[in-house]
This record gives sequence, structure tokens and C-alpha cells, in this order.
Amino acid sequence: MQRLLLLSNSRKPKGGWLDHVEPLIKDLIGEGRRKVLFIPFAAVTISFDAYVAMARKRFAQMGYSVTGAHKSTPASIRQFDAIVAGGGNTFRLLAETRERGWLAPIRTRVKAGVPFMGWSAGANLACPTIRTTNDMPVVDPKGFNALNLVAFQINPHYTDRKLKGHGGESRDDRIAEFVKMNPAVPVLGLREGSLVKVEGDRAQLLLGPGARLFRRGRKPRDLRAGADCSALLVRPA
Amino acid sequence: MQRLLLLSNSRKPKGGWLDHVEPLIKDLIGEGRRKVLFIPFAAVTISFDAYVAMARKRFAQMGYSVTGAHKSTPASIRQFDAIVAGGGNTFRLLAETRERGWLAPIRTRVKAGVPFMGWSAGANLACPTIRTTNDMPVVDPKGFNALNLVAFQINPHYTDRKLKGHGGESRDDRIAEFVKMNPAVPVLGLREGSLVKVEGDRAQLLLGPGARLFRRGRKPRDLRAGADCSALLVRPA
Repeated sequence: MQRLLLLSNSRKPKGGWLDHVEPLIKDLIGEGRRKVLFIPFAAVTISFDAYVAMARKRFAQMGYSVTGAHKSTPASIRQFDAIVAGGGNTFRLLAETRERGWLAPIRTRVKAGVPFMGWSAGANLACPTIRTTNDMPVVDPKGFNALNLVAFQINPHYTDRKLKGHGGESRDDRIAEFVKMNPAVPVLGLREGSLVKVEGDRAQLLLGPGARLFRRGRKPRDLRAGADCSALLVRPA
Repeated sequence: MQRLLLLSNSRKPKGGWLDHVEPLIKDLIGEGRRKVLFIPFAAVTISFDAYVAMARKRFAQMGYSVTGAHKSTPASIRQFDAIVAGGGNTFRLLAETRERGWLAPIRTRVKAGVPFMGWSAGANLACPTIRTTNDMPVVDPKGFNALNLVAFQINPHYTDRKLKGHGGESRDDRIAEFVKMNPAVPVLGLREGSLVKVEGDRAQLLLGPGARLFRRGRKPRDLRAGADCSALLVRPA
């Protein structure tokens, strides 16, 4: 049974890093000195080492040890009790995860029940593709297919606000483009502070202001924290 | 000698479509009933036919005829006096332009002196790659390389404003990521209303609030309308 925490972002506006989800992380990963594989590949302006050091410090506060995927190999994946994908640039994250051979092993382990958590770019990595990222395509990931742990797309940092007087597409415009080009795939616009918790065939929206759901041929619909999203896990026939 | 007009966007906040650049378009394309090849492939939520119809109406006001690239073939490119690439979704624009075989013929004709104009996604198409687009990657263009008419990248709709209280990267953060990953390539963040006019080895920033220039190892620098940008045309050795 797969168990996932997919977060829009990693902190509340004035909160500490991952503070708002600490109880959920502890519930996901469990008690004791569990070994966490941290995927730092979304980092661009800081080094992978620096990103792993940040994660190591934060997860140590919960009693977990952290190994950076750039210092490990896919062949060693069975030694880890949980997998955590950090945010940053989604294109870089997917490019490095694929090139270093981690995509298939991570998917296999998570499908076998190893807990997975990702925020922002890391949440996008859990989707069928990265086609709903907000990031700039600063590197070519050589294909947009991702971990495909769930059947829907997440748009992290979702907002329906817009800069006044500024042209270019709104977020809703962009997601409408996605739905037009990919009609079979629903998109969950996850507002900041909110997340999706998946356990097997159950999914629930938790914390924060909720999400907006976009599906082909239907009006976008706002969902509140607590809403059941299990229907989104069902793959189109 | 190549002649280009590369626009951040296609209108002023309260202006009509392409009104702010009509004199520049007439100067670019010339007098008489010139034949314009219009590239409508950035359209997602409207059809290519509908986009071409809009362009046909607007360019007819300047005395030009318009043919949509989706109704023509790359083999017929020599019959056109100018090439215009419309805005929309950059990934879709590049995907269709490449798949239908237009990339190389357009580049060849423009390098031979056929005037080229593009706005937003259409301006990105003129760059080495589309790696500085703001758009959502709703389709996979199977590679990010574009027309490579100029040696620098444009970020259209550039703004240094940010939604208050919203997380995620600012535009400057995103461009900093690009520069980190692609250190040899300068990025011109073109503010709305501004454009770059290229004639051979000369480039000038024109109209509107100007641009911000990002280069590896240097502080971002604001440029005003009128600034000479010819140095950006020089390819790194």
C-alpha cells in the first residue's frame, strides 16, 4: 500500500521549515531512527551538499538520519525506510533523477510501501508528468514523464491571484491550457500550506486553504482541507 | 542581413492589438501587399484557424496578406515576404513548429534577410532555446532548442514585482537559476511594452519601460528604451 505526503510548499508564511507538517511526517515515517533517502536534485542556486545538510538537520530533529541521493546509488535503495524529494526547480529535479537512474527504483519501492514525501517540485515528481510545474525550464529533462505514483497532476503554489496590470497568462489560464492538451488528467491546484495525504486507494486534502480542482469539461471547483480526493487516484480506463 | 522585431507582448494595457508597434511593423515588412507567413502554433485554447483569422484581420489593416503555417508547407516558404510568430504557449509553439518541419526553413530564410517578428512565445522562439519561457510545459517539444536567431535569451513579460505573501520563486530567482545552469547565455528580461529591434549586427531596445539584463557573475542591470544591445548579438567564442 503506497503512502504519500504531497505538499504545495515547505512552510507557512511565518513558520519554520516543515513545522506545519511535522506531526504528519512523523506519522508517515514512523518512530525510531529511520533512514531517509533525500533527493536534493531540485537545488540550483545552492549545492546538493548544502541542501542535504539542511534536510539532515531538520529531519534529525525528528529522530531520522538522512542520506543524499547524490552520495548514494539506486542499487542501495532497499536500505532506506523513507524517500523525501525536496522542492526547487522541477526540470532540474527530473533531469538528475532520471539521468542518475533513480526514477524506476523509487517508483518500485514506493509502490511496495516505502513512505514518500515531496514538496513543491518534489510533489510534482510524484505525478504522471511534470507538465503542471510553474518552474522555468532551465535544463532539458529529456522527457516530462515522472514517477507516476498518482493519476492526477499537482500544481504547487497554486493561487488565483494575479499581479495587477500585468499581462501574460494567469495560473488558471495556464492550467486550462494543460487540461485542453491533456484532457484525461485532472489537475489539483494546491494552495500554499495545503497537502494531499495518500494511503493506498484513499486520498485526502489536509491543512491550509485547500485546492482548486480542474477537469476537462467541468467548472473548476474549490476544495477545502479535509476533502476526500480518493476519486482522483482512479486511473482513466 | 537579418531583421527582427522581438516583443515582450502584443499590446499596451489599454491599447489595441499591436497598435503600439504598428509603425515598426510597417518599417520591418515594408510597403505594398506583402505576403506574411503567420505561425499560429502557440494557440492552445483557441484554434489555429481562429488565431490566423485574428492576425489576418490585423495585418490587412497594414496592407498585408496572411497565410497560416498550418495551411502551408515548409517547401513553400520562399513565397513569403515576412514571418510572424504569435504568442501563446511556448512549448506548444516549439513542438508544432519542429514537428511540422518549419524550424530549419524559417531560420534559413530569416538569416537570408526575410523579416521576422514575434511576441511573447514568438519572441522566445527566436532565441537559442525556450529555456527562459514563463509558460507551463503542457506538451513536450522533444528538445528545447529553438530558432537560434540571436545569441541571447529573452524572458517575455518580465517583471520584478511579486505577489505579496506568496511563496515560490520570483522571476529574478527563476532567471538566476537559468544563468547558473547556462552561464554563457545572457538573459534580457523584457518588460511589457518593450521590444528589441535587430538589424544585422545591431540591436536596440525600444519603447516601454525597458528591460533587465542578467549575466553570470554580474549584477542584474536595468536598461532603458533606446539602449544599444548589440553586444548581446555576439556569440561566445
